[in-house]
Amino acid sequence: MKQIEGGITAAKGFKAASVAAAIKYQNRKDMAMIYSTAPCKAAGTFTTNVVKAAPVLWDKKLVETAPFVQVVVVNSGIANACTGKQGFDACKATAKAVKEALDVSVDACLVASTGVIGMQLPVEKLANGVKAMASQLDDSTEAGTAAAKAIMTTDTIHKEIAVSFTAGGKTVTLGGMSKGSGMIHPNMCTMLGFLTTDIAIEKSLLQEALSRVVQDTFNMITVDGDTSTNDTLLIMANGLAENEPITTKGEDYQNFLDALFYVCEFLAKKMAGDGEGATKLFEAKVVNARSKEDARTLSRAIVASNLSKAAIYGCDANFGRFLCAMGYSGAEFDQNDVELFFESSEGRLQVFDKGTPIVFDEELAAKILGASEVTIYVDMNEGDAQATAWGCDLTYDYVKINADYRS
Amino acid sequence: MKQIEGGITAAKGFKAASVAAAIKYQNRKDMAMIYSTAPCKAAGTFTTNVVKAAPVLWDKKLVETAPFVQVVVVNSGIANACTGKQGFDACKATAKAVKEALDVSVDACLVASTGVIGMQLPVEKLANGVKAMASQLDDSTEAGTAAAKAIMTTDTIHKEIAVSFTAGGKTVTLGGMSKGSGMIHPNMCTMLGFLTTDIAIEKSLLQEALSRVVQDTFNMITVDGDTSTNDTLLIMANGLAENEPITTKGEDYQNFLDALFYVCEFLAKKMAGDGEGATKLFEAKVVNARSKEDARTLSRAIVASNLSKAAIYGCDANFGRFLCAMGYSGAEFDQNDVELFFESSEGRLQVFDKGTPIVFDEELAAKILGASEVTIYVDMNEGDAQATAWGCDLTYDYVKINADYRS
Repeated sequence: MKQIEGGITAAKGFKAASVAAAIKYQNRKDMAMIYSTAPCKAAGTFTTNVVKAAPVLWDKKLVETAPFVQVVVVNSGIANACTGKQGFDACKATAKAVKEALDVSVDACLVASTGVIGMQLPVEKLANGVKAMASQLDDSTEAGTAAAKAIMTTDTIHKEIAVSFTAGGKTVTLGGMSKGSGMIHPNMCTMLGFLTTDIAIEKSLLQEALSRVVQDTFNMITVDGDTSTNDTLLIMANGLAENEPITTKGEDYQNFLDALFYVCEFLAKKMAGDGEGATKLFEAKVVNARSKEDARTLSRAIVASNLSKAAIYGCDANFGRFLCAMGYSGAEFDQNDVELFFESSEGRLQVFDKGTPIVFDEELAAKILGASEVTIYVDMNEGDAQATAWGCDLTYDYVKINADYRS
Repeated sequence: MKQIEGGITAAKGFKAASVAAAIKYQNRKDMAMIYSTAPCKAAGTFTTNVVKAAPVLWDKKLVETAPFVQVVVVNSGIANACTGKQGFDACKATAKAVKEALDVSVDACLVASTGVIGMQLPVEKLANGVKAMASQLDDSTEAGTAAAKAIMTTDTIHKEIAVSFTAGGKTVTLGGMSKGSGMIHPNMCTMLGFLTTDIAIEKSLLQEALSRVVQDTFNMITVDGDTSTNDTLLIMANGLAENEPITTKGEDYQNFLDALFYVCEFLAKKMAGDGEGATKLFEAKVVNARSKEDARTLSRAIVASNLSKAAIYGCDANFGRFLCAMGYSGAEFDQNDVELFFESSEGRLQVFDKGTPIVFDEELAAKILGASEVTIYVDMNEGDAQATAWGCDLTYDYVKINADYRS
């Protein structure tokens, strides 16, 4: 497997377009389209929030029931959540506009939205946007990058990646883009993610691979603990790589799983590090825990704690906050087993040793925590399970961004 | 029942003292003592955090097993959490100093600490503090207030209250003090609370009353979702009111329960409104929910959400965030049943009506949210259970306080 240039247009047969439709933002692109020249198998994972936005309901049904999909239309600015029947009608209107412009059936068109909750989408602007994008579809890297930029809200950088690997002697490509920032928390968070691949694979295996990889990637990031109404991760596989279709969990499936993990971890870490107002990527690695679930729970609790996040922002070696977060996470453990370390490109320092604080070099600790990527490494010494979670620091700018997001 | 002047020294036989012991803070009082001239029945509720500070372990055991207690010693500055055997020894040394100074047995002395985790207490300074306080015990209102100030950390105001009521024809008094601020979250949060009463009551009923009242008061507040290692609420009852001892759940018990609720709700709201960096008290009232547990879960989720809290700070009528928080709370409901209102001294405004957003007067909304106490009122229209939760807004100052708490 190797990382290659590009994102959603890297795999064979995938094209993208984007446009400034003035949905809510002015003077920037706010709609994107992904189109596959061939029908695709689709899989997805969606928000666990009881309040699901209209596009989530729309996509969930299509992913489960539609024989194939071919298009995704995304808008930023308005989330189309808490919008009642009118919101669902907006999804339908979008798919109808796609049908008119591209001759793709209504139930082959997925939709996604991100932005303010509780506002209705301007349907005519959406339809105009679809029409404009349909005429500009392009398989260039630039078209993919422009789409990745159009779906951003409070993101400061666009997120895209592509890899290639071999399956059944053929070169297969997998690309993706995502947007994140605020409201990011397991399970499936205000994140939209779109993956495109030319692999030939059975639909059930595609879903199984996605669901499995999400557990250790997108579901291990948190920005603020809020699980949004709109979280959506979609993958489309059009089979144009012409590999022998994957129908069992053999070597080809494993190669695909590895590539999928690489792509999802890359996008997840980018989202965590680009949390609203964030100045650094905050990683918690828990090893030798009693169970995988405990390791996940403990590592997520560390990166989710406001107090931990504020300490990381201030480079304050206040390690008690990490132990405290582990303590209320719900996982059982004995603090007298725990060892805690700070790690970054600036060094490694133990601060807690099986129940007892260590007198450490404060200057070195501040230097380690001052790096742009900081890891809290926790050895539980109670088992052999491990997990890693990612988040970001809590800053003045987080508050600023969210105190007046709508204006 | 009526509210009266004072706090922990209001009830008969209770004295207090406080001192500047230079535990960690300089130039301010940082130790407090509560003493009862008569032996007390004691009850308590403690943090649910797996990582329990040494004083929590010490008190839990005494509350469960000691025949009576007579003294509480509290320090601020250092939490004595994650401190191993040395930390537990510090509790013992404190109780021994009390025994020497006041001739109270070691297992009649409760201790409590709040402050930085992972630092050891300076035992000699503690012992000196105990000695100094033992010689200054005083039943004046001023002594109680000074104690309430000595236990503060990042609190901006001290919290105390007292009420009197009648039981068995006798006047009974109940007083209390608490400290809160950061790390406040159900269940039992970085809060220390101390209640003193001269009522005569059976120990098991005292514990039952406290555990019941905590559910709807202290456990319904949140500042940042972090449940601390040190949370402790203690009540001591010395029987000096000379009422017929309460042994059944009759009228006297009910009067006591009402007084306890009033005192605990008062202290809980004060703590929520004085959360770190807070500029306002943020209340969520959920009515007509399917069950009491759902009502609690929903209301707590609203006040716990960083995004909700930031919106409240910015007076941003972004009601979707409240619905979003309800959606990921874990409670089941149908958004098409829900009505949502903003309320404060400035007015009342409906913003969401059974699945559909309402076009509302933004100026009025901002005015309502601009008050110093703001309520999100949610009618679930699905049952008859209700609950209220309290929190505060998320501000720049929260980040500032917690980015460098230790220095």
